[in-house]
Amino acid sequence: MDFAYDARTEQLRGELTAFLTEHVYPAEPVHAEQVAAAGDPWARPPVMAELKAEARRRGLWNLFLPDPRYGAGLTNLQYAPLAELTGRSPHLAPEAVNCAAPDTGNMELLAEFGSDAQRKRWLEPLLEGEIRSAFCMTEPEVASSDATNIATRITRDGDDYVINGRKWWSSGAMDPRCEIFIVMGKTDPGADRHRQQSMVLVPRDTPGVTVRRGMTVFGYSDAPHGGHAEIDFVDVRVPAENLIGAEGAGFAIAQARLGPGRIHHCMRLIGMAERALELLCRRAGERVAFGRPLAEQGVVREWIAESRVRIEQARLLVLKTAWLMDTVGNKGAHTEIQAIKIATPAMAEWVIDKAIQAHGGAGVSQDTPLAALWAQTRTLRLADGPDEVHKASLARRELRRWTHPSA
Amino acid sequence: MDFAYDARTEQLRGELTAFLTEHVYPAEPVHAEQVAAAGDPWARPPVMAELKAEARRRGLWNLFLPDPRYGAGLTNLQYAPLAELTGRSPHLAPEAVNCAAPDTGNMELLAEFGSDAQRKRWLEPLLEGEIRSAFCMTEPEVASSDATNIATRITRDGDDYVINGRKWWSSGAMDPRCEIFIVMGKTDPGADRHRQQSMVLVPRDTPGVTVRRGMTVFGYSDAPHGGHAEIDFVDVRVPAENLIGAEGAGFAIAQARLGPGRIHHCMRLIGMAERALELLCRRAGERVAFGRPLAEQGVVREWIAESRVRIEQARLLVLKTAWLMDTVGNKGAHTEIQAIKIATPAMAEWVIDKAIQAHGGAGVSQDTPLAALWAQTRTLRLADGPDEVHKASLARRELRRWTHPSA
Amino acid sequence: MDFAYDARTEQLRGELTAFLTEHVYPAEPVHAEQVAAAGDPWARPPVMAELKAEARRRGLWNLFLPDPRYGAGLTNLQYAPLAELTGRSPHLAPEAVNCAAPDTGNMELLAEFGSDAQRKRWLEPLLEGEIRSAFCMTEPEVASSDATNIATRITRDGDDYVINGRKWWSSGAMDPRCEIFIVMGKTDPGADRHRQQSMVLVPRDTPGVTVRRGMTVFGYSDAPHGGHAEIDFVDVRVPAENLIGAEGAGFAIAQARLGPGRIHHCMRLIGMAERALELLCRRAGERVAFGRPLAEQGVVREWIAESRVRIEQARLLVLKTAWLMDTVGNKGAHTEIQAIKIATPAMAEWVIDKAIQAHGGAGVSQDTPLAALWAQTRTLRLADGPDEVHKASLARRELRRWTHPSA
Amino acid sequence: MDFAYDARTEQLRGELTAFLTEHVYPAEPVHAEQVAAAGDPWARPPVMAELKAEARRRGLWNLFLPDPRYGAGLTNLQYAPLAELTGRSPHLAPEAVNCAAPDTGNMELLAEFGSDAQRKRWLEPLLEGEIRSAFCMTEPEVASSDATNIATRITRDGDDYVINGRKWWSSGAMDPRCEIFIVMGKTDPGADRHRQQSMVLVPRDTPGVTVRRGMTVFGYSDAPHGGHAEIDFVDVRVPAENLIGAEGAGFAIAQARLGPGRIHHCMRLIGMAERALELLCRRAGERVAFGRPLAEQGVVREWIAESRVRIEQARLLVLKTAWLMDTVGNKGAHTEIQAIKIATPAMAEWVIDKAIQAHGGAGVSQDTPLAALWAQTRTLRLADGPDEVHKASLARRELRRWTHPSA
Repeated sequence: MDFAYDARTEQLRGELTAFLTEHVYPAEPVHAEQVAAAGDPWARPPVMAELKAEARRRGLWNLFLPDPRYGAGLTNLQYAPLAELTGRSPHLAPEAVNCAAPDTGNMELLAEFGSDAQRKRWLEPLLEGEIRSAFCMTEPEVASSDATNIATRITRDGDDYVINGRKWWSSGAMDPRCEIFIVMGKTDPGADRHRQQSMVLVPRDTPGVTVRRGMTVFGYSDAPHGGHAEIDFVDVRVPAENLIGAEGAGFAIAQARLGPGRIHHCMRLIGMAERALELLCRRAGERVAFGRPLAEQGVVREWIAESRVRIEQARLLVLKTAWLMDTVGNKGAHTEIQAIKIATPAMAEWVIDKAIQAHGGAGVSQDTPLAALWAQTRTLRLADGPDEVHKASLARRELRRWTHPSA
Repeated sequence: MDFAYDARTEQLRGELTAFLTEHVYPAEPVHAEQVAAAGDPWARPPVMAELKAEARRRGLWNLFLPDPRYGAGLTNLQYAPLAELTGRSPHLAPEAVNCAAPDTGNMELLAEFGSDAQRKRWLEPLLEGEIRSAFCMTEPEVASSDATNIATRITRDGDDYVINGRKWWSSGAMDPRCEIFIVMGKTDPGADRHRQQSMVLVPRDTPGVTVRRGMTVFGYSDAPHGGHAEIDFVDVRVPAENLIGAEGAGFAIAQARLGPGRIHHCMRLIGMAERALELLCRRAGERVAFGRPLAEQGVVREWIAESRVRIEQARLLVLKTAWLMDTVGNKGAHTEIQAIKIATPAMAEWVIDKAIQAHGGAGVSQDTPLAALWAQTRTLRLADGPDEVHKASLARRELRRWTHPSA
Repeated sequence: MDFAYDARTEQLRGELTAFLTEHVYPAEPVHAEQVAAAGDPWARPPVMAELKAEARRRGLWNLFLPDPRYGAGLTNLQYAPLAELTGRSPHLAPEAVNCAAPDTGNMELLAEFGSDAQRKRWLEPLLEGEIRSAFCMTEPEVASSDATNIATRITRDGDDYVINGRKWWSSGAMDPRCEIFIVMGKTDPGADRHRQQSMVLVPRDTPGVTVRRGMTVFGYSDAPHGGHAEIDFVDVRVPAENLIGAEGAGFAIAQARLGPGRIHHCMRLIGMAERALELLCRRAGERVAFGRPLAEQGVVREWIAESRVRIEQARLLVLKTAWLMDTVGNKGAHTEIQAIKIATPAMAEWVIDKAIQAHGGAGVSQDTPLAALWAQTRTLRLADGPDEVHKASLARRELRRWTHPSA
Repeated sequence: MDFAYDARTEQLRGELTAFLTEHVYPAEPVHAEQVAAAGDPWARPPVMAELKAEARRRGLWNLFLPDPRYGAGLTNLQYAPLAELTGRSPHLAPEAVNCAAPDTGNMELLAEFGSDAQRKRWLEPLLEGEIRSAFCMTEPEVASSDATNIATRITRDGDDYVINGRKWWSSGAMDPRCEIFIVMGKTDPGADRHRQQSMVLVPRDTPGVTVRRGMTVFGYSDAPHGGHAEIDFVDVRVPAENLIGAEGAGFAIAQARLGPGRIHHCMRLIGMAERALELLCRRAGERVAFGRPLAEQGVVREWIAESRVRIEQARLLVLKTAWLMDTVGNKGAHTEIQAIKIATPAMAEWVIDKAIQAHGGAGVSQDTPLAALWAQTRTLRLADGPDEVHKASLARRELRRWTHPSA
């Protein structure tokens, strides 16, 4: 047992921290100004392109991709502390180093399950940061935590697949540079419950695709992340070779995609909580109320101590999960992946809430990143399955240990 | 001791409920559409004017004003359950019956402390619902929970007062119909700490007044409430008769304003929580996950039961506080006013959070009122003094009971 | 709506407070010494007899009994604040004024459902405080929150009933003065589920009755309350006239007994929380750590403020419940009785925990009443049905309001 | 970074688990019976001697001692998972393997700071498990979280030291086999605040030593751990060679002792929480209420999942702390030692509380180990400095990172 990061991780942490300090944090207000000046929330402010160029120059690019043919070739355990660092500036840093969701998951999916042609057509420009992508799974009418509920139909018709259905919370799809949608639907509703689903690639400009609106998140368009679209698919026709993997493999591919996705989210949440704690401490040191700085008030100190204690615990659990994924695989890390999905958003929400409270009106407003961090964090308590679903599942497994010892 | 509402209250509750059911709830989606169609968040959608006309027709108007010369002449205890009902649709109902903050507090202030000329010029159009008003107290640079920190200066110069300072979180001031600002500042920084402040009336179009921007609350402009403005006052000159009450009376007037303001906020929060609980129950009855309605899941039932138990307790404390204000005055109800300020936002935040969770993605989006309810509620944990200030003050009084029994 | 106690209540509160101050609080250490000196935890220390004599002299006796033929003839709303006061010294005060559980419930039961002979034989000495009684419902093998699970059998045999079964948590039964057990069992397991049960009076010295042991509560024997016995009933034979009410009426009688029992527990819990808050404040005023009294530490102030706010809310809900029981009956107050059963122990537990923490080692030891208060409070979160059962039931009713509006 | 235990740890974990399963768990009811039969809570039941003999036979003895001359020579990181296992049966297992507090800390202290003569006289019989020892630091009159408050005086008089003072919470001192007290007091109240204190060895039978009483912990005598004594020292005279280390070194020695002591407590708490979770799961699988096992109730599943998630996080933080102590020393691990002191008792308390609730009356009684586990856990939230002191200190360090970056 050893709690030290390895040498490569330490080096990359140093380089990434320097990039954040020298470029990303200073770009935050610039980005906000450029967005405000553009008048169009979906416009891409030029500062982002500059950040991406600088990151590439520094070799901080596609760090998330374990396959060395495409990316940095890091293990989950090596990437995790880097993802944490990008979470400190979650609107800018992940995209700047081409490690932003949902592109990360989509690139992994294409690298692992895509055909050569699919990789050439879509993975390459994604790896270059030239286009963006969306993953269209969640639907408004059904509980999406149960993938077997999916109502979208993908029907074979000659050399084509025809897609009909409605998706929402398709993150990133409001970004005009988002060119490709990975759509999950049922090809065979009569098959076994985990063999009914398939995935197809649908270019955004395919006839029958209508991006209806962006969903708001506590009033935010979430434009820096490309928003969250509601999309209609009406008799959308794509060639059969747009199928990813085999018919009926959709559920398995989705599962393969979700494990790393969850751990990436959780690592960024650790970084978001760290950022909030830093802001809390700075504010506490500066702000004077009733004659003394907040830092001398017992309740504020209690918040700070609790925040530190909670962050440390969550980080260790995320790192152990990454290590398990590397050593025994996603399946062997199933319990831990659920555990961090349960623990980390709740932890970050708590910490950010305290930082907001210490900032007063500034905390809920556009003058600090805190309110936006909070909204994103709160959403992760229900995105990709609400906490309650994961808890029920984790508990079932725990119960089996003690009530059916042979199972 | 008697826990039944009196006859007049029961009658008004019935009438207000009918108005909400027949007009306000159906107007909610209409209002959202008209706002979206207008393209300008600060535009006033026509449906509001219709609601106001209907409310007046029904005699549901200025219910908050205890002075029968100007309003309904209700006690705090009679008005409280009505304010609760308006909280069920907090974007529309309070304004529809001309009981929306901050106008309510401003009207009370003018009714009680204004000169005849001030009442004629500003109170009358406010009572008619023709204009709106803002209360400019909070400042960005100082902890506004301590009123003695106020940095804005109001200087006598001949027959005028000259105002210099910056305010923010001036609620309602982004509404183009907002014509009058009540500005708090220091006229005599050398006086006793609670005799330094004064209040003056500053028409919005006075030279030197600049509304710089609207503060966002999480991602919301809070446009239905007229937003929250940051305002510069640079050498703003108003005639001396714009002073409200006497020089040095500002702190006392502010205190007189805050008591009823707090209880109104708390009553509306009870209604907001009730609305969220209703939505939670309806969702739980309709939504099926993993083969059965949410209503049959133990955790959801726990939320519902806890919500009911918490709401009931908070409501009773608010009602008792209203009764105390009626019977022993705001000063005698000081502890209870602080207690509800502490208890009610936290309660409502908890309930609304659970309703959001049960709604999944819809809960954080524009498709339910929940996310906006949440943002408003969260803000009330810090608006008008953060919880921690009120807790420290309440604790000091409790400690005195036991440690200096003679005090 | 009126939040003032009526004149009779105020007078009795004054008299009871005087009795507590002049006699009960000073008797607490005396009682502890006499118990320690006796060497037998079940011995009754003489100071209790003195307290009882003094209470009778002052007319503070049987306050709980609404039937003026037997007791003070107070309404629930009048008695509630008095029960609260007795909760401030829960080991001594309730018994001193002959208002201690489980005798209170048993006396009410005999007064309402007992025959003349039963009242003469058992109610009279109980009203005089000469004997004590136990209520034997809970069983070790079954979930007692569901009364239909009861396994004890009561079989008619000629002019007798024969009882077989095992009970536990029969409170008060370890007290040697406890002479009579009210035993619930099934007379007709084939009847409708709420008509299977009956109750019989079983004198403690009946052959076949074996008091096996006292259950501990955390490490306490709970001797001041007569302990909690596990009792075997093996072929215990009592005359048929020992049946209370009719055969099959046991469930209904139990329900009638539980409503007031719950509210009495809750009122005493309010008093226990008030006592803990007083001790917390006194300690905070006296104890110095790191150079200043605990009272000046923000976290301690937060505890005090939260405690006050929580106690006030819970008390109001209990009082409203008492008022409902008086005005619309136990059935009409069903939701509220469950709500206080859920809210009050949790509230008191929280407050007492904070008082313990402020007392350090003294708080968990015999040197303050806090640890014993805590243990008693914690137990009430599961006695008479765990919180979870009450929450599930309350939620079902709330859900019905919104999902089957006609129901 | 590597989350696997090393080979020696895995082997010892296997051996210790076998010992627990084959001997310790079966001994729990035997121990309870022997204690009950003895009539004297302080009598040592014979089963303990048998367990100790068996443990020695298996080589499971003095595992805690890092110095290979005296003990197993394990690192903190190797010992931590073993201490966790002993926590699963905290009344029996630690003593059975001679790893019970406070002897562990006292043995470490003697091994590190004792003279040859002191080691020969006291350390050897302790290592053999023949006698027990107590550490007398806490005092009733002062806040013991601040060691500079200590009032006990140790005065040099010729070749002797004379001790005067009162101690309490001297754990283990009620055990008749406890022969030696390590007493902390002030030798030079005028010195620098951390140079005023010294430690002396005081044999229990020294004239002037009076063990006045045992403190109870939520009603428990804590007899299996030797209780917690209040002890008077009146003109107690010991030879000068009983001084441990140098005069004025008491504070430094105490600090050296507390680091490992805290981590041992925390590891055992992890084991206690694991035991509670196991009992919770077993109960949930067996107990039927309202027609289905508790295991199928959503709220119980939520408890189980939350318990697992919280335990995992706390364990990792404790392990990391052990690793830091091994690699950078106790001082370098200061923040983490405080963090686990804050996090672990609160976590264990939460888990045990849920297990109690699922067990109903059995949970608070002598029929499960849960109530005693709870009482011990709750006490650790205030023993050795209340949470609040540790939080304030940890927060100060966190604040310094951000407000005085150079510090």
